[in-house]
Amino acid sequence: MSDNPENKGEKSIQLNPWGDDLVADDDYIRLCEEFGISLVQELEIPYSAFEKNRFLRRKIIYGHRDLGMILKAIREEKPWAILSGIKPSGQFHLGTLTTASEMVEFQKMGGKIYYAVADLESYADNNTPLDTAYKYAVDNIADILTLGLDPKSYVYLQSREQIPKDMVFMAGRHVTNNMMKAIYGERDFALYMAALVQVGDILLPQLKDGPMPTLVPVGIDQDPHLRLVRDLTRHFKYIKKNRKTKKEVSSPLFKPAATYHKLLPGLDDVTKKMSKSRPNSYFNLGDDPIEIEKKLKRAFTGGRRNMEEQKKLGGVPEKCMIYKLLQIHFQPDDNKLQDRYLRCKEGMLCGTCKKESVQIIMDFIKEHNEKKQEMIPIAKEMLSREPKTSGF
Amino acid sequence: MSDNPENKGEKSIQLNPWGDDLVADDDYIRLCEEFGISLVQELEIPYSAFEKNRFLRRKIIYGHRDLGMILKAIREEKPWAILSGIKPSGQFHLGTLTTASEMVEFQKMGGKIYYAVADLESYADNNTPLDTAYKYAVDNIADILTLGLDPKSYVYLQSREQIPKDMVFMAGRHVTNNMMKAIYGERDFALYMAALVQVGDILLPQLKDGPMPTLVPVGIDQDPHLRLVRDLTRHFKYIKKNRKTKKEVSSPLFKPAATYHKLLPGLDDVTKKMSKSRPNSYFNLGDDPIEIEKKLKRAFTGGRRNMEEQKKLGGVPEKCMIYKLLQIHFQPDDNKLQDRYLRCKEGMLCGTCKKESVQIIMDFIKEHNEKKQEMIPIAKEMLSREPKTSGF
Repeated sequence: MSDNPENKGEKSIQLNPWGDDLVADDDYIRLCEEFGISLVQELEIPYSAFEKNRFLRRKIIYGHRDLGMILKAIREEKPWAILSGIKPSGQFHLGTLTTASEMVEFQKMGGKIYYAVADLESYADNNTPLDTAYKYAVDNIADILTLGLDPKSYVYLQSREQIPKDMVFMAGRHVTNNMMKAIYGERDFALYMAALVQVGDILLPQLKDGPMPTLVPVGIDQDPHLRLVRDLTRHFKYIKKNRKTKKEVSSPLFKPAATYHKLLPGLDDVTKKMSKSRPNSYFNLGDDPIEIEKKLKRAFTGGRRNMEEQKKLGGVPEKCMIYKLLQIHFQPDDNKLQDRYLRCKEGMLCGTCKKESVQIIMDFIKEHNEKKQEMIPIAKEMLSREPKTSGF
Repeated sequence: MSDNPENKGEKSIQLNPWGDDLVADDDYIRLCEEFGISLVQELEIPYSAFEKNRFLRRKIIYGHRDLGMILKAIREEKPWAILSGIKPSGQFHLGTLTTASEMVEFQKMGGKIYYAVADLESYADNNTPLDTAYKYAVDNIADILTLGLDPKSYVYLQSREQIPKDMVFMAGRHVTNNMMKAIYGERDFALYMAALVQVGDILLPQLKDGPMPTLVPVGIDQDPHLRLVRDLTRHFKYIKKNRKTKKEVSSPLFKPAATYHKLLPGLDDVTKKMSKSRPNSYFNLGDDPIEIEKKLKRAFTGGRRNMEEQKKLGGVPEKCMIYKLLQIHFQPDDNKLQDRYLRCKEGMLCGTCKKESVQIIMDFIKEHNEKKQEMIPIAKEMLSREPKTSGF
């Protein structure tokens, strides 16, 4: 996980939120231990949570920090927030879809979604002009609305929102170069700043609407951001002025909680992350369906070397990209998913399975894109709401 | 000038905008050579400029970058800007007074003043809450209005203005840690960020109102900021949308110009900068007049060891804090200033001179503070104007 070759093989690992490394399934538990992330399997989760959230139910989420705090808020019927965001530098693809879907699953459990459109970051990282970023943002939000995002959620553009922008200065007081190096490794200036903006994003629900447990669903590569924000939270307070007495009351914030999901590998190579540099490793939801279908048909599966072995040993759905796609995104029905799993294990040929599965995926995407068109005006409306003018 | 002891004695000098070092008078020319700053004495300056600007006339300004560009704009009657700012962390004192007065002198030459109230920096550096900073800002602006600031100038709070805040991200793309280290030395993260905000401040007149020559009057300790902004200017453009054709026209910006003034040493020690850690080294304009008078009476002068030597050799006004105060701030009349200079050289005793001079200074301050009261509402009005909502 480190890009410093001298560290290879040592116990000390540095996660890189901006890198291309993929965490292998077997490494998850080791990484959790390394970074003090708790295992979901060791937490008592009520049945209702599993029922509502397929990411928990299907064990796509394996690790957490303080998820118990969220479950407690649910039990006590107290408000809690879900915070996520996107860098608006293109259409929704399989990777961005993961966190967005997961967020909507948590929304079903009662959280209010706060969603950051990181247009400042897409400018800084990809040189995307703000008005281009806005167009992508409308498109991206329409996708999430189609997945089930509540239109009452708080969606904001970083460039117009003062809290994350001001946080660079406010948090800047409390970090040192050495602290940033310890968390992120030796990175460039712009990335350290991007990290501080994210501190503002993650604390925004509480700074804006008052202290409440906040959940940030991420892949483990994003954990450095969580460690940073959890370390800095104690320096910030929610300040409310009593209108009558004019007195200011300040309340401490909750340390943000997090869940960690397994990363979806590339369609073309189950050992690597999806990457724009390998066009066959992913697709955008808005791509030409013929192209999507081609990529799916070429996707890496968990099939054996030949028909004989497949019949004898059964397939390996755990290593099959088609199965992973159905599990994470495209097969909402647990029974049907389990049925496919069993048939694979019993020796169903990949050709047969792919034919059925590709159809399921293509139908899902077609329906998604049709429904999405109706969401565009709602997305525009959500993005035009007036932001809070001053961060502190 | 460097705080790295290994560099001591080497030719390479690092100026520190955040340090306490004082540049000795004799070092100015050497520093100009070192950093490629041009000498004002080598520039042809029209008589009218000297007439209007006592900082030029009295040679308090000795160095410049591209001042010729400003003189050209004046000759051609084109608009030009003066950019300065203050960290609102207290009352106006002798040090902050210098740049403010200088700015007003340049305003007499026809420039429009843009003035940054760096409340984000005073939060980051001094932990000054934004509402406290606002109170200081009103007070500081009232001081500058009293000195002659045109109420039509553009005064803004950094926390409410998007250009400098967004510049951290925009400029962040174009700097590397090594570049920042080369300019500022190994500093902490928050200071690098503060430097990028200043890039936004210095380019604000042009990004807001279109390309025009911009002058930044500074002490040489601020030169690193000038080098940074002059290096980064090429990455930014002024973008204007034609309302009829909807076409965007982008124009390049002028590299900001600068003038360098001599720093006013501490009242108590002509070899050191003023510093809050030495209360006798400075005073605030709003301090108790009795206290101010005490400090002035104790101030370091250019007197000889005894009366006999003073009579024989004359005093040294160049090393006299009282003379420097009159020259920079409190004696507007050139003839009276010259008269005092000559009388000193002819052996006037420091006691005699101080008695007269302290009276002149105390009268100035009294009048200033009375006039200032009327400026408070104007300062408030200037600070309440609506800022530009988006930086880029």
